[in-house]
This record gives sequence, structure tokens and C-alpha cells, in this order.
Amino acid sequence: MKAAISSLISSRNFNLHQSSLSRSIFRQPSLLLPSRFPVSSTGGGGGGGDANFITLHHKFRFHSIKSSASMASSFNPEQARSPPALPLSIPPVTKFKIALCQLAVTADKQRNIEHARKAIEEAVEKGAQLVVLPEIWNCPYSHDCLPLYAEDIEAGGDASPSTAMLSEVSRRLKVTIVGGSIVERSGDELYNSSCVFGTDGKLKAKHRKIHLFDIDIPGKITFIESKTIAAGETPTVVDTEVGRIGIGICYDIRFPELAMMYAARGAHLICYPGAFNMTTGPLHWELLQRSRAVDNQLYVATCSPARNADASYVAWGHSTLVGPFGEVLATTEHDEAIVISEIDYSFIELRRTNLPLLKQRRGDLYQLVDVQRLKSE
Amino acid sequence: MKAAISSLISSRNFNLHQSSLSRSIFRQPSLLLPSRFPVSSTGGGGGGGDANFITLHHKFRFHSIKSSASMASSFNPEQARSPPALPLSIPPVTKFKIALCQLAVTADKQRNIEHARKAIEEAVEKGAQLVVLPEIWNCPYSHDCLPLYAEDIEAGGDASPSTAMLSEVSRRLKVTIVGGSIVERSGDELYNSSCVFGTDGKLKAKHRKIHLFDIDIPGKITFIESKTIAAGETPTVVDTEVGRIGIGICYDIRFPELAMMYAARGAHLICYPGAFNMTTGPLHWELLQRSRAVDNQLYVATCSPARNADASYVAWGHSTLVGPFGEVLATTEHDEAIVISEIDYSFIELRRTNLPLLKQRRGDLYQLVDVQRLKSE
Repeated sequence: MKAAISSLISSRNFNLHQSSLSRSIFRQPSLLLPSRFPVSSTGGGGGGGDANFITLHHKFRFHSIKSSASMASSFNPEQARSPPALPLSIPPVTKFKIALCQLAVTADKQRNIEHARKAIEEAVEKGAQLVVLPEIWNCPYSHDCLPLYAEDIEAGGDASPSTAMLSEVSRRLKVTIVGGSIVERSGDELYNSSCVFGTDGKLKAKHRKIHLFDIDIPGKITFIESKTIAAGETPTVVDTEVGRIGIGICYDIRFPELAMMYAARGAHLICYPGAFNMTTGPLHWELLQRSRAVDNQLYVATCSPARNADASYVAWGHSTLVGPFGEVLATTEHDEAIVISEIDYSFIELRRTNLPLLKQRRGDLYQLVDVQRLKSE
Repeated sequence: MKAAISSLISSRNFNLHQSSLSRSIFRQPSLLLPSRFPVSSTGGGGGGGDANFITLHHKFRFHSIKSSASMASSFNPEQARSPPALPLSIPPVTKFKIALCQLAVTADKQRNIEHARKAIEEAVEKGAQLVVLPEIWNCPYSHDCLPLYAEDIEAGGDASPSTAMLSEVSRRLKVTIVGGSIVERSGDELYNSSCVFGTDGKLKAKHRKIHLFDIDIPGKITFIESKTIAAGETPTVVDTEVGRIGIGICYDIRFPELAMMYAARGAHLICYPGAFNMTTGPLHWELLQRSRAVDNQLYVATCSPARNADASYVAWGHSTLVGPFGEVLATTEHDEAIVISEIDYSFIELRRTNLPLLKQRRGDLYQLVDVQRLKSE
């Protein structure tokens, strides 16, 4: 346990002053833990209780040292989330490479599957430990196609060749895959679903798009996804070999509440497979992902299909990785591309020390309730 | 009443199809009002109950026409805010000019006051009906200066020459002023306070900065505002002659919850007087204001002091008006400037029709509680 903690501390990008500060607090935690913080709320979805406890100390050191009258406990920052935000868990790796596979999508499903397999293989060859695919990467995005290309993910095997491929390649190459999204058939319903596979090839999580893309900008873009697709019922955060990841699909990114809940559930990274279009893409794609990252002080990765100007729905492209200061770390234009970039989770804690938003929140004035997490407690 | 409504409808930028849609719904409201919506929650800070009721219909027409299985009432979009979001009130004017006075601040308080008066006069000459001043516009922003320049706003008169000027000029020129901020002395405490004056010269609202600027980016910017300033206790939304305005000061913009509450309280516009610096300015100033605007589908105006490279705290400048699609409508560099631009509130409703986020929210999954508004009900 102790070894794990000191390895986490030493892996951070802190300067000498900050490192010694961390260590001194680590030595005397009882002196500095704000007594009002509900320390019982550790764990909760992986990460380990003791480790979270120590991480919690670490996060609160700034407050403990520089607290003042105006940061009085009556502001109740921990109450700004209900249940209170979980501390960051210690990720299995702090630094790793992520690949965003901006794939061209054709009407040939088998070709799309083989093409995605090759892209994942290439990404892993280039060192990626996490590969993200686009929204609806095995099928043209149109109401006509969506039902025809749907797969029964729960049945698996031949009923879901796309996820069978993801499972096979993740296990063979020992890579974590956020499998973009495909159309899922479940009973009478269709969902826009993202499957996350672990390095053992097992399906670790499935996120069904919660907020459907029903928009109407006359003369520009009108699409009512809910004509064909049903909405998911559950936010999705999953512990993987590359950290705790929240999943949203495309239009989910427009709802700040979802990202705020994911941050409060201790996510290091939010992945949004998404296919913005030629209107909302230039207007909002980068803005929204930078905004989710800077407000929640975590990493955000997006992955779009490549643009096909002949398709009925023309995707914007521009798959991007954003760091916890809202900075664009890597991006691309609209052609096919594999964007590879490094994620370093130590920057999350650094940015949360720079701008200690977590403990500056006003739980006496506002509170975001995570309904399902609250009910489960 | 009816005249006011049709004038509002006719002033909108809707195309013919949309206008006729609005009118047909106006004729048969009972057919289209979603019965689960708590229509009793109108009013609440001005705007008039009946007017809000009609506006509510208007806002929900898209849903009523295009609802589908996936937009079932079990998603409870109205529960995503507690209390439920207020409808947009009908503003006294739909279209008007706003002026952002990016003022140079000196150590000479009397000069700063006269300078601000002249800027407001110039802005009004150019047609502005709303004038916004910068954060701490009468005083250098430093711990040494803040107490020395503080004024007793409640006492008024000679005890607060800065607000006396704002009151005089707003009454004389019949202009609404969001008076940036000054340091307020109240008993033993100092606050960073923004005063809003109506066209009658009366103080309509006073916002004390809620989230204090305590940040530490080593080698870049370290400032602990709470060493000197106490934090406000209340979010501020005020009905003015130019619409319902939410007020935040500088660091308040970093907290999405505040803007989300203001939107739920029916604000048309959020004004953030702010003095970002040479580190956080280029990183986050525009990002944060565009983000608050696009997520909440309202106008956002910021006003900074002009840059003084010799000051102990160097402001970023770049006062900006952002529209409800997150689009920058007007901005400037870092020198003194009066940014004048048109606000057209009909775009709020247009954008909320384009992207009907308000009714796509998942109240079954998350809920933002406005603590004070909930307690007051």
C-alpha cells in the first residue's frame, strides 16, 4: 500500500516545494484532515478505501494550509455534490498513450469492422494503451441504416460481430478499448451504445446514449434521433487498466451535469465518441469538450468518424484530446487519422492544486444530486 | 397583456413557419401544455405570472409537436432543477445596445470615478441602454489598496462616492448600469461588490462576489483574495429595464452551477465584471464565458479593466459579449475601449428551439438544487 502511494507521489509533476508539502502531510494526516469531510465515503466503484483516504488528504492540503475566514466550513463545499464527491482513485497507470481512431465509415459493415480492427492494431503498435473509436463506426448514420446494422450485444458472438471483434483484439493486444458506439438491439428497442473492453477482452461497461440528438436548426441541420433510438437510463463510469473513465456519446456532451457527476464519481477521463455535424461542429465541438475538461479538471477525449461529404449525415471530424486546464493536447482535421497523445493523470491533481475549485464550491448555495448514486447508498 | 405578447412574438427573428407555429399554439394553449409541468411556479422575481405562463407554452411547443417514446415523461426534465426552472419572463425590451466599458484604472480614485462617468456618458450617447463596468474599476487590485479604497455602499452619499456617481448618472441618462465592482466595507468585513442601478437611479441589486479568487499557479499567478475580502452569501438575479440579469464577479464564472441557477431563475443575460490575468486570461477567459452562454442558452457579457503592464496585477482585458449559441458577438483587445453591441433576446428562444436542451435534460438522473430559492418557497 505504502509503496503504491509513494510511487504515485513521486510520479507527479510537482516542484520541490509541492512534493515536500505532500510528504509532510502524508506523515501527519490527522493534523490536517478537515473534520467535517465525510471520510466514510471512500471506495464506491473501485480504487481502494485506504488509497482514497490518503488521496483525500492530499487534495485538501492547500485548504488546510491557506484556509481563511472566508473559506469557513459554512460554505460546505463537499455538499455541492450529493452524495459528496469521491476522491480521485489511484489509477493503475499515471502516464500512458491514448489513440483516437477517426475512421471512415462505409455502407459495408464487414469492411468497417475489419478496418477498425486494423486501426486498433496500428494504434497499439504505436504504443497506445487506450483506443477510442467513433460514434456509430460500423454503419452510416441514417434512420434507414440504424435498424439494419443493429447488433444484439448481450447475445454476443455472431449476433454482435462488432463487439466480438473488439473483445478479440483487446484480449489479444492487451489494450483497453472504448468502442465508440454501435446500434444495439435489445428486445424491441434500439440504443446507441458504447462498449468498453478491458485488457482481458471482457466487456467492462456498456453506455447507452442518455441524451438523444433531437435538434432543429432550419436550413442547417434537423435530426430527430429519438425517431429510431431509445435513450439509455444510466450514467456510466468504469474502472479500467488506464484509470476511471466516464462515457458519454455525442449529444451527451451538451449536458454539463453528466460530466460534473462523472467528476464527482472520481473519473480521470471522460470519453465522448461523437459525430457532430457541419453546423454544430464548428460552432460547439471544441468549445464543449474544453469546457467539460476545464470545469471538471480532468481529461476529455472525443472521437468522430472521418468526414464523408457524400454521406447523408456529414461528420465534422476533429477528434481531440483535452487536458484538465481545457488545453487541446492533440487534434486532427476531418480526414481519417489515428491521433496519438500522452495522458498524464498527475496533471489532474496539479490543476486541482492550482485552481482548488473542489473546495471553493458553495454547497451552501447549490448542490448537484447524482440521483442513481444517491439511491444506491 | 395581449398586445405585449404579440409585440414580443413579432419582434422575434423567426421565419414564417416558426411565427405561424407560435401563433397557432398561442390560440390553443390547453392542447399543448405538458400537464406535468408545475405552472404555478411562475413569477418569482418579476415578469408577471400570465406572461410567463404564455411564454412557457411557447417554449414547450417543440416538444409537444415532436415528442416521441424516448422523450417520455419518466425523464422528468423539469426535475433537473430544484425548484423547477422558471420560464423566461418577457423583457421590457427585446433588442437594445449594451456597452462594456473597459476602463484604465489608476491609483487616483477621484479620477477613476470621473473617468467612469465620462465613459458611461459616451456609451449612452452611442445608444447604450445597458452599461457594464469592470471588476474593481475605482482602485488598483492589490491587497494594500483594497481596504483603503473601500466604500460603505449601504451608507451611501459621501461614504460611497463611486456608487453616488453611478446613481446620479443612471438617473440623469435613464440608463441601466451594472457597476462592475468596488470594494465594499460593511462592519468589519470587506466585500468585492457589484451594484446594479436602474434608470431611476436606484440601487436595484448588490452582488457580493461569492467565489473568491484564491489560486496558486507557481511561477505564473498566485493570489489569495480571501486574505482581504469576505465572500458573499447570495446569488443575484435582478429584473431591470433591459431584462433579467444574473450577476457574477470574475472567479464566479468558474462555477457552472451559478450560471445554471441563474438560467433556471429565468435570466436573459449574465454579466461578469472580471479581471482575469495574463495566465488565466489567454487560457480560460473566452472559453468560460462562451461555455456559460452555450450551456445555458443565454447572453453573457464580461467587462475587464484595461491592461496596465506596470500594475502589480496585470489584467487580461478582452471584454466580450457572447450570444446564446456561444458565439462571440463583440470583443476587444487589452487597451481602453467601449465595446458596443446589440443584444436581441429573441435569439434566446430561437436557440432554445434549435437545441431544446431544457426539455432534454434528465431529471431522473441529475438535479441541480438552488438552495436559497428552494428554502424561500
